[in-house]
Amino acid sequence: MNVDSIERGVVIDHIAAGKGMEIVSLLNLEKMTCPVAVIRNARSGKSGKKDIIKIEDEVDLNLDALGFIDPNITVNIIMNGRIVEKKRMAPPKEVVNVVKCINPRCITSVERGLPHVFRRSPESDVYRCVYCEQEYQPSKQKL
Amino acid sequence: MNVDSIERGVVIDHIAAGKGMEIVSLLNLEKMTCPVAVIRNARSGKSGKKDIIKIEDEVDLNLDALGFIDPNITVNIIMNGRIVEKKRMAPPKEVVNVVKCINPRCITSVERGLPHVFRRSPESDVYRCVYCEQEYQPSKQKL
Repeated sequence: MNVDSIERGVVIDHIAAGKGMEIVSLLNLEKMTCPVAVIRNARSGKSGKKDIIKIEDEVDLNLDALGFIDPNITVNIIMNGRIVEKKRMAPPKEVVNVVKCINPRCITSVERGLPHVFRRSPESDVYRCVYCEQEYQPSKQKL
Repeated sequence: MNVDSIERGVVIDHIAAGKGMEIVSLLNLEKMTCPVAVIRNARSGKSGKKDIIKIEDEVDLNLDALGFIDPNITVNIIMNGRIVEKKRMAPPKEVVNVVKCINPRCITSVERGLPHVFRRSPESDVYRCVYCEQEYQPSKQKL
């Protein structure tokens, strides 16, 4: 199953199968008024199955957030029915207000106005809250 | 934007724009391992915009639940690339375990094993809990 090509917009490809909806929620795509397609479990030669998101409009996406969720994602920018740019993700050094710290004793849980900042530790791929060192664990968190 | 035709499966069409994700969650489509596409805000001659869901597998859908959410939905059954059946929805008389009663004093909030049953009143299109008469209000409820 494939969505036919779009004239102008963005294709988020090679999303790990099952993570498409998470990205829809993370990027607030459910609030968009332009056509948006989410294809789950599409066949993929490379990894068996993948999710794909197509957005039929020029939109600015939070690429740091995408790289944080899944660095294997590619973002294709489409103009006049052709790919004009292919962006590869990388795990960002830090993400601001992408995920919230779940530690109830963290300063961000008390001071509501503070930004939620997670920074990647150089030794591992673990992200930690810059205030309280709480490790980011996807399974325990709602994005 | 359209998803190309599928060989075998189900197409849920004419979903009110923006309600696609609600149906994904209601029918537990996020747990399916077959390809599933959700197209939001697709152009529609009839009503301007609509959502469409395509499922590339034979699946049994809860048609009562679909009619309860949006009676304008049509369900097309596809075999060998052709529509072999077109089902139109109707608001069902009652739905069992589709939505939960939110009244904290309702017997279903106390007795966890009881089925949640909502019945449509013959005079209006309002659904009420058969135990406590609580009206179903989509805005107050998580499906």
